[in-house]
Amino acid sequence: MESVQGPHTKSHLVTKFLIGDEYLKDDSLAVEEPFEIKLSYFKDGKKVIKNISVTMRTPGNDEELAKGFLYTEGIIKSTQVLERVENFVCGEGKENSITLFLASGDDPNLQDADRNFYMTSSCGVCGKSSVGAIRTISEYLPDEIFSTVIDRETLLGLPDKLWNHQDVFKSTGGLHACGLFDFNGQLIMLREDVGRHNALDKLIGRALLEGMLPLKNYVLLLSGRASFELIQKAAMAGITIVAAIGAPSSLAVELAAEFNITLIGFLRGNGFNTYTGAGRIK
Amino acid sequence: MESVQGPHTKSHLVTKFLIGDEYLKDDSLAVEEPFEIKLSYFKDGKKVIKNISVTMRTPGNDEELAKGFLYTEGIIKSTQVLERVENFVCGEGKENSITLFLASGDDPNLQDADRNFYMTSSCGVCGKSSVGAIRTISEYLPDEIFSTVIDRETLLGLPDKLWNHQDVFKSTGGLHACGLFDFNGQLIMLREDVGRHNALDKLIGRALLEGMLPLKNYVLLLSGRASFELIQKAAMAGITIVAAIGAPSSLAVELAAEFNITLIGFLRGNGFNTYTGAGRIK
Repeated sequence: MESVQGPHTKSHLVTKFLIGDEYLKDDSLAVEEPFEIKLSYFKDGKKVIKNISVTMRTPGNDEELAKGFLYTEGIIKSTQVLERVENFVCGEGKENSITLFLASGDDPNLQDADRNFYMTSSCGVCGKSSVGAIRTISEYLPDEIFSTVIDRETLLGLPDKLWNHQDVFKSTGGLHACGLFDFNGQLIMLREDVGRHNALDKLIGRALLEGMLPLKNYVLLLSGRASFELIQKAAMAGITIVAAIGAPSSLAVELAAEFNITLIGFLRGNGFNTYTGAGRIK
Repeated sequence: MESVQGPHTKSHLVTKFLIGDEYLKDDSLAVEEPFEIKLSYFKDGKKVIKNISVTMRTPGNDEELAKGFLYTEGIIKSTQVLERVENFVCGEGKENSITLFLASGDDPNLQDADRNFYMTSSCGVCGKSSVGAIRTISEYLPDEIFSTVIDRETLLGLPDKLWNHQDVFKSTGGLHACGLFDFNGQLIMLREDVGRHNALDKLIGRALLEGMLPLKNYVLLLSGRASFELIQKAAMAGITIVAAIGAPSSLAVELAAEFNITLIGFLRGNGFNTYTGAGRIK
């Protein structure tokens, strides 16, 4: 059996809370980093390099990822046409960009590519540069000085409240949800979608229409994992506390730390992990 | 508490299997449909309409989604600048496109948008048109005539085998996985990633490099939900049977039916649901 290769996990110190017990512990995070795919080919005798895609991925098996992507998107018909692969190191010594070279005479099928790719979220190729970009744009970064705003028991009660109101999930088992709660644990708003970034965009879009921004007196609860893009969107809305029922990624934790956002993961049953900003929790 | 509004579920007849029992039943699916966001604004006194994003979403709260997206991506600073919203009906009477209009003098911040949006998968704006597009491109559509190739007990054993080999997930709780199994239930290949489409691209990329395509004698097991884009990628690789531990979306089921792919969902514990192509299962 062939398995994954590469640097997939990162260590991070978390505050682990289980009813009656609290301690610090080293926790493993799934690594999430941006990855850029470029294609070099010949057009009218001239060499062209085209940016095909930027995706958030776990490093490792990058050549497979690039070739698999180009193939499943119908841009190349086989790997025979790929003359060579080059990795470009992008900031901090990380290999986060690949260029695939087609031989002269091999034409990529790009006619639908521009029109057809989904766009799900935004960032530069490097986490670093995008972090800078968001900080410039967001008007609502949480204060640096932490004060206790929510207690553990209130946090532990949130998942059941989300679940009790997840109407579409109950009937289909197939949706992501995000809920906005006040610091007393009252559910203010809930949105569900097949795409977790869409559920959050809907929630923030409604808050925006209601003139509620910045959402600094609310907790955002995510039904699944906390990824970079969800923390980025939360930061744009000025949300102070993000809690996820699933695991956070490495870049989600880094972004939350930079933005002074309290990030909680594995909020389920009798406990949770606090990755950043533990000072806001009583 | 505000909740979601819109047509979120669709009914579909499934073959439900629980050890010792098998029956037909109507099942609810989470609706997944493409959604296009366009922005109209003035540039040098001329009106410009720009395609901003296409995303797969659950219909409902579309104006929130569009405004929330533009805001969290930093393209607009508030909803004050949006003069009016228009929905365009796209094929089959579905409202799957929205255009937001900025007043003259309000400039969107698009400088980073082109460079920065992730692209995760491809399709046209209408499910219909993209289904047609894939059929043209894919060389490996499964045969229309079904013959029994895998038995129920083998299927039921797959999730444990995937789980036992999911090294990164075990340590982080934070990754999507996909596994390729032969019809005897032997795990051939496993890939994990923070993005489920990336995990599948890596798996198909490796199979491509190994000259294994079309993968018609294999079962693909997905650790989470089955979405449109995952079925689309599976179809490109000629995969005949796709099994998901989570739920499928409405568009995933439609696509599997069009491509003669056997689609199984909720494969866990003692049972599973077969949404399409039940004839391949003994």
